[in-house]
Amino acid sequence: MSKQPVNPIDEERAGVGLPAPCVFVNGEAVTTVSAADRGLQYGDGLFETIAVAGGRLEFWDRHMARLIEGCSRLGLPAPDIEALANEAGILLNGQRVVEAVDAGVLKIMVTRGTGGRGYRMPDPIEATRIVSFHPAPDYPAAFARDGIRVRVCETRLAEQKQLAGIKHLNRLENVLARAEWDDPAIAEGLMCDQAGRVIEGVMTNLFCVTDGALRTPDLSRCGVAGIIRTLVMEIAEEKGIACEVTDISLKEALSSDDLFLTNSVIGLWPIRAVADQSFAIGPVTTKIRLALIDRRRAETKA
Amino acid sequence: MSKQPVNPIDEERAGVGLPAPCVFVNGEAVTTVSAADRGLQYGDGLFETIAVAGGRLEFWDRHMARLIEGCSRLGLPAPDIEALANEAGILLNGQRVVEAVDAGVLKIMVTRGTGGRGYRMPDPIEATRIVSFHPAPDYPAAFARDGIRVRVCETRLAEQKQLAGIKHLNRLENVLARAEWDDPAIAEGLMCDQAGRVIEGVMTNLFCVTDGALRTPDLSRCGVAGIIRTLVMEIAEEKGIACEVTDISLKEALSSDDLFLTNSVIGLWPIRAVADQSFAIGPVTTKIRLALIDRRRAETKA
Repeated sequence: MSKQPVNPIDEERAGVGLPAPCVFVNGEAVTTVSAADRGLQYGDGLFETIAVAGGRLEFWDRHMARLIEGCSRLGLPAPDIEALANEAGILLNGQRVVEAVDAGVLKIMVTRGTGGRGYRMPDPIEATRIVSFHPAPDYPAAFARDGIRVRVCETRLAEQKQLAGIKHLNRLENVLARAEWDDPAIAEGLMCDQAGRVIEGVMTNLFCVTDGALRTPDLSRCGVAGIIRTLVMEIAEEKGIACEVTDISLKEALSSDDLFLTNSVIGLWPIRAVADQSFAIGPVTTKIRLALIDRRRAETKA
Repeated sequence: MSKQPVNPIDEERAGVGLPAPCVFVNGEAVTTVSAADRGLQYGDGLFETIAVAGGRLEFWDRHMARLIEGCSRLGLPAPDIEALANEAGILLNGQRVVEAVDAGVLKIMVTRGTGGRGYRMPDPIEATRIVSFHPAPDYPAAFARDGIRVRVCETRLAEQKQLAGIKHLNRLENVLARAEWDDPAIAEGLMCDQAGRVIEGVMTNLFCVTDGALRTPDLSRCGVAGIIRTLVMEIAEEKGIACEVTDISLKEALSSDDLFLTNSVIGLWPIRAVADQSFAIGPVTTKIRLALIDRRRAETKA
């Protein structure tokens, strides 16, 4: 976004010590939504969490493609990508000029708006568009370099093909799973489905490395198909590393040589331990991690 | 609520032609919630839909008991029932005095408020409390008397024991199921789980009658345990009608003598047809329906 002209309003706000706006709802710099919004009433919508580094949005086109796909799956009108990009640009400029902040997280939510009768959708659907800027989470840098400790969550993911893969707003399972531990030494939790297949982390996707080849869980029954997950598969192909999307039991995952987790904000975290079982960080994981850092720099929206 | 003193502000609003407030958020007469509310972000909360008739709230104590149970299941602080009752009373008085309306639906939402880091819950949790009044839906009176036509939805319910039974805000399955049809002659859809057991209607609970005895689906894996469902089981016991909570395949349900659906707003609707299979309205269904009308009148919050 750094090529965008500075919004004169941002400079004015900086001059008089006013904070930069950090939320737009349908293009307005307000921080609230209607209590009748179906996003609140039913979780009837989608979201994207986009890393901001150096004032730029990482993997914008990929996030927008997933959002479009999610809208199609839920029967939502195609999102107004131009309006989203414009609002994101104003927020990022404001953060940079007024708050002197150029890294963080941009969150986009698209909901089915208000109206309808009960669960029945309104006709026409007038989607609500929410764009917000948040400080970057303060994860230790060692997580990416030295790996993390994870636990296996007791909360299981329900199987629902119609919602699998997309980043919808029905996230109580993730909330309950994340509430299972409070130990700051545990950075993430692995989640299985009802049949005991490992599917993902609470906020991440999982990759297993065995004999130099990658496997990642099939997400056709549950789980969120992350932007970085797809990118890792592309990088693997480019580098001639085999990568299979398949069902993986927890036991199989734990018998891998090494394991890593991905998402848009963290990039890649190697797993150093699952409960009391230790893992080394192998060469494939390191190769993917470094390639991903390059791609994060390359694929940004200017 | 009719015994409550009239709020003088309501009389003043009526005098100058201002509409009565119809939403309270945390005790304030506003119509918006924070875009950062976890109810919107993750569907992290619960709701109740309470029928209002003659200016009174039907089955208030039962709704509050279910809300308390839901909060306990989701790790939410116990709701402030006194505040909810007070806000409900003011809304109902305002509707009565300003709008001359004494029937409709009161909806209560309780969410985990704002804060936390991602899926992680905030500590402490400061819940958001939303109370709103809505006009009664305009269902034809014939639905309760003569029965309704229903369809069998293709959208299946996912099995998730941790969320089964409670009325949480993750309702995309119901939204997708309700979007399957547009024919106004179809009043409701039946939903099965992944294994083909019939669980409930999109917005209702199901009862099957065979040889004078009731059966209703087990909701320990998915579905919402409705207030009226429990009440029907109590009425059945009082009247010496057997009632079993059990797994019921769709085929078994369709081989019943008759079927009916319940929820807090509609009361009881007999099913006259499922797709092209017709059903008669039997004496047990009629007996339960009439008993329920009596109980709705009796169990109101004055």
